[in-house]
Amino acid sequence: MSTLLETINDPKDLAGLSVEQLTQLAEEMRELITHSVSQTGGHLASNLGVVETTIAMHRVFDFTKDRLLWDVGHQCYAHKILTGRRKQFSQLRQENGLSGFPNPDESQYDVFSVGHAGTSIPTALGLALGAQHKKSDEKIVALVGDASIVNGLSFEALNNLGLAKRQLLIILNDNSMAIDVTQGSIAKFLSKVRLSHTYEDIRDTTNRILEHLPLVGKRMEEAVENFKRTLRMANTPSRLFESLNIPYFGPVDGHDIGSLIELFTALLHLDTPAVLHVYTRKGKGYDPADDNPCKYHSTGPFEVNGTSEKAAATKRSFTAAFGDAIVELGEKDDRVIAITAAMPDGTGLVKFRERFPDRYYDVGIAESVAIDIAAGLAKQGLRPVVCIYSTFLQRGFDQIFQEVALQNLPVTFCVDRAGAVGNDGPTHHGLYDLGYCRMLPNFTVAAPADENELKDALALAAKGDKPFVIRYPKDTVPVIAKNVIPYELGKSARIRHGKSEFAIVTIGPILKEAMDAAQMLEAEGISITVINARFAKPVDPAIIELFAQGKTVLLAEDSSIACGFGSAVIEQALQIANESNTQSLHNSIGKAVLLGGPDLFVPAAARNRQLDWMQISAKQIAETVKKLKYQAKTTDKSI
Amino acid sequence: MSTLLETINDPKDLAGLSVEQLTQLAEEMRELITHSVSQTGGHLASNLGVVETTIAMHRVFDFTKDRLLWDVGHQCYAHKILTGRRKQFSQLRQENGLSGFPNPDESQYDVFSVGHAGTSIPTALGLALGAQHKKSDEKIVALVGDASIVNGLSFEALNNLGLAKRQLLIILNDNSMAIDVTQGSIAKFLSKVRLSHTYEDIRDTTNRILEHLPLVGKRMEEAVENFKRTLRMANTPSRLFESLNIPYFGPVDGHDIGSLIELFTALLHLDTPAVLHVYTRKGKGYDPADDNPCKYHSTGPFEVNGTSEKAAATKRSFTAAFGDAIVELGEKDDRVIAITAAMPDGTGLVKFRERFPDRYYDVGIAESVAIDIAAGLAKQGLRPVVCIYSTFLQRGFDQIFQEVALQNLPVTFCVDRAGAVGNDGPTHHGLYDLGYCRMLPNFTVAAPADENELKDALALAAKGDKPFVIRYPKDTVPVIAKNVIPYELGKSARIRHGKSEFAIVTIGPILKEAMDAAQMLEAEGISITVINARFAKPVDPAIIELFAQGKTVLLAEDSSIACGFGSAVIEQALQIANESNTQSLHNSIGKAVLLGGPDLFVPAAARNRQLDWMQISAKQIAETVKKLKYQAKTTDKSI
Repeated sequence: MSTLLETINDPKDLAGLSVEQLTQLAEEMRELITHSVSQTGGHLASNLGVVETTIAMHRVFDFTKDRLLWDVGHQCYAHKILTGRRKQFSQLRQENGLSGFPNPDESQYDVFSVGHAGTSIPTALGLALGAQHKKSDEKIVALVGDASIVNGLSFEALNNLGLAKRQLLIILNDNSMAIDVTQGSIAKFLSKVRLSHTYEDIRDTTNRILEHLPLVGKRMEEAVENFKRTLRMANTPSRLFESLNIPYFGPVDGHDIGSLIELFTALLHLDTPAVLHVYTRKGKGYDPADDNPCKYHSTGPFEVNGTSEKAAATKRSFTAAFGDAIVELGEKDDRVIAITAAMPDGTGLVKFRERFPDRYYDVGIAESVAIDIAAGLAKQGLRPVVCIYSTFLQRGFDQIFQEVALQNLPVTFCVDRAGAVGNDGPTHHGLYDLGYCRMLPNFTVAAPADENELKDALALAAKGDKPFVIRYPKDTVPVIAKNVIPYELGKSARIRHGKSEFAIVTIGPILKEAMDAAQMLEAEGISITVINARFAKPVDPAIIELFAQGKTVLLAEDSSIACGFGSAVIEQALQIANESNTQSLHNSIGKAVLLGGPDLFVPAAARNRQLDWMQISAKQIAETVKKLKYQAKTTDKSI
Repeated sequence: MSTLLETINDPKDLAGLSVEQLTQLAEEMRELITHSVSQTGGHLASNLGVVETTIAMHRVFDFTKDRLLWDVGHQCYAHKILTGRRKQFSQLRQENGLSGFPNPDESQYDVFSVGHAGTSIPTALGLALGAQHKKSDEKIVALVGDASIVNGLSFEALNNLGLAKRQLLIILNDNSMAIDVTQGSIAKFLSKVRLSHTYEDIRDTTNRILEHLPLVGKRMEEAVENFKRTLRMANTPSRLFESLNIPYFGPVDGHDIGSLIELFTALLHLDTPAVLHVYTRKGKGYDPADDNPCKYHSTGPFEVNGTSEKAAATKRSFTAAFGDAIVELGEKDDRVIAITAAMPDGTGLVKFRERFPDRYYDVGIAESVAIDIAAGLAKQGLRPVVCIYSTFLQRGFDQIFQEVALQNLPVTFCVDRAGAVGNDGPTHHGLYDLGYCRMLPNFTVAAPADENELKDALALAAKGDKPFVIRYPKDTVPVIAKNVIPYELGKSARIRHGKSEFAIVTIGPILKEAMDAAQMLEAEGISITVINARFAKPVDPAIIELFAQGKTVLLAEDSSIACGFGSAVIEQALQIANESNTQSLHNSIGKAVLLGGPDLFVPAAARNRQLDWMQISAKQIAETVKKLKYQAKTTDKSI
């Protein structure tokens, strides 16, 4: 059966459709999204929630010249489907397929490549100021969720919105739900407002907006006042925006396409920034997601007709291992307090939250403040553990520097998603934490290779009285024979003693790849040494000893080579070489090989493909060693 | 003549004094601060403004157990004088003297070492949660200015303040003035409120607060409502805090010690976070500072009896050179837009603002949004130039990553105060920008050695279509003979060809130190090569060529060694060595010497002393070369 959706290959194709047809289209799109995400994995609930808003936006605005900014961007699926990418939608989040986030390389309809929260209003403001400067008249629209608008970056932009003396529409997509329940006073305030009125009130609000929107020449302040005065509901979030001097309209029903089209059409002509507040339901139209939007925020493949997840992970993730380890630690040490920035599930804190509700804080999508709260807790003699993904921890770099490193406080950072993250792609890789953390005085930076080391690192961090980073990837925990070498601060572990000149030193679970490479090489008669560095900072002098022994040292890390672990080893090797004036050191350092992320953004693909691409998979490591051995031979001959 | 102030050696000594005596004390403290800052330099206007508030806080609270958090911290002079540091105050900002900012190493009364904005509320919240957990009853007070409270970090903390179910007093010190006039809607709102009522209204407000503050058992909401209802003024900032569900009291007179003591005493007993809004005058009591608080925000030494500044700088600063260069560029290229985060003066943008008011934006102390606005402008085809100190740019690391590097947008960062900054100390050094910028794909990182190169770099950045960093220190521009080697992307310049095995490669104006070192060494018969790298990224292959020539290469930078320029050179040298399998390269890389900031915080001192300490002064560079030469000789013998 042919569907309406099949006739939509471009937003222009929406023009002829009636509101009834657009409503039917919304249902078809919801089905496509649910079915497709069940195959590819991805964000489900949030995408189901914004289908009508997306259709209405594309019907009213012309985003070949107007600009649409998505916040975080995980809710852009309907947008992708409408803008000529319907057929590729089945390849969402696959290698060479569509990105799970907006991506200008894919389509002129995507303005920024995003994945972090709070950027839509500030970049929209920049675009508006640019248009002001160029005197161009494109309309600019930022769609931001209630969880992102409370991010400090959004707030800084709202406070500066007055710089724009032209149209700039902010659509506040309020589903009362971040990834988990939205945290903080503003979220509480919004949900109180939401509970204070009926559906009829909402319908009425739409009419009042349409009635009072300023005509040409009518003053905005007057329009907003009139609108407010005639509203049926006593309680609206207008005062939240009044102190910021931003005209506020709403709340309105975000699932009523007809009304949305009328509202957008009316708001199109404003010559000042304004906020339109729309209510949506996360997971709308797919029952399991509607009932459990938290579970279906971001999902792997699942079965559509039933609530069970397809291919339940049989292997244990680092996240799960951490989740158990911190509960265990919490039992032993009541100074341990866990803090997350809207990611209790993603960072593995759900069990801890259940077990120790009074020792758990979720600050919403606000990484910076999570770190400062931890600094305050540490000052009080407690042992805060900050759980944030590597890429999002970038938001707190300055807090890590000033409030933690400079004060030398015992804050532990449990950095999940460190390294290549697979299909989420460049916005989500955690390739820089080794660099931005090891730069700072007083820091210890650890990367456990397996679950035992993760537990050991966590215990060590809590026992100490200094800043401590523990990083691990979005991956399963490798099963490595229990290492008998005790886990000590700054000490590496020799896993394998090889007879050849080659030694490989790894940080984190790349150890497993190196061990597998060693086996492959053994089969070809090359016996290599394998060292598990355990710490990127401090660097164990035993690693430097390899150079003194004349080894060709390969340094492998799931991280950017620039500023990474390998670089840390070389910096220290040079320092020791100069202090000790050891000739063998001088001679060997220059043979070192740095393996890791190059000076490029790692494309979305399966994680194992990415390790290959970064030359840190077992196969690539083995290849590199063989190449070096062959080179060494030819060099020998030529001398 | 003996003064009251001489009898105050500890906050306890305030106990016996009458309000009249405390008022006299305030005058004496103001005199001491003005006189002392005229000798040492420092922040004047803001410190004169908070004298009475500081006295009242120390009279009411006991900060041996209660905790006082300063925001930015530059206004803590009166606090230092009252807390046993009066005699050392003449050594403010001197090597081994008092820090210009709070410093826990100096005094138990200083809780955090700070210098960046927006940290007082979040760290106070952390301390409050810690106290809650420990069930301890210390009072916690955060003093934050109207310029810092609009920072995104402050906002994130305000939105999470509800986590604290106990006392936490936020004193909003409102002087309607950041470093320059405070920017943004909230600032406009606050100043509108300020203009809307009389001094009598303010007096009345104080009485209403004291009347309605909740007694034990009385509900807070009720108290706040009663307070509001009886207020004489129609317009207060209460609604700003209402949506955040934070009880608000004020505004009150921040120079009336008697009232402040009564208010603090009353607020002491609240069992919930609350805001007290106080009005102060920046520069109060010292006429020139009162008239021109912007000029006297942060000052060098000056004459007290007259407005002329002592020892006017005869040498040209990098800041001034940049200020002229960007005006010149702006004349030629109307796509150039300058953006600052509350630092038009400090970053040298005052001339540009005068010349191109429509192409200049000040977003207040909100570095993150400055970068995102720039990204939006760049998307519109413009050439934004973001002017932020190195240490404050850390606040925008994630925006630099996602909104600029990942989109590959032509945003230019002019990073002032890069490197050691002298007396402002660890919170203000810019030692990490080379690392956190060079890590990111698509970036070019330049460090001009003199004024000509600064102009060349700026022109190159504007001409290009990629992210570009230009870093320079808080220092005078060295006078170096005009270099005939054209300034090209990624090209270094050989300044001096030496006959010895030693080559020194520098980045930025450390070139001058290396040239001076070369002269010293020449006098001792050692002829060294000097290369001006010009770029930390990309690294010029000509630098790697030095290794192939068998040179001992010294890499000198005014930056942290970890992740720095030297590290970048070595990373690339290793890569080329492996790709080309060049034996001479392998052999020489290990002889490299990295000179720059060690893994420690560089103490406050004069900048030239800091360069010495980091081994990058001419003298230290020469010493290092001599030591290496001696070592090389002894090694030769032993072989």
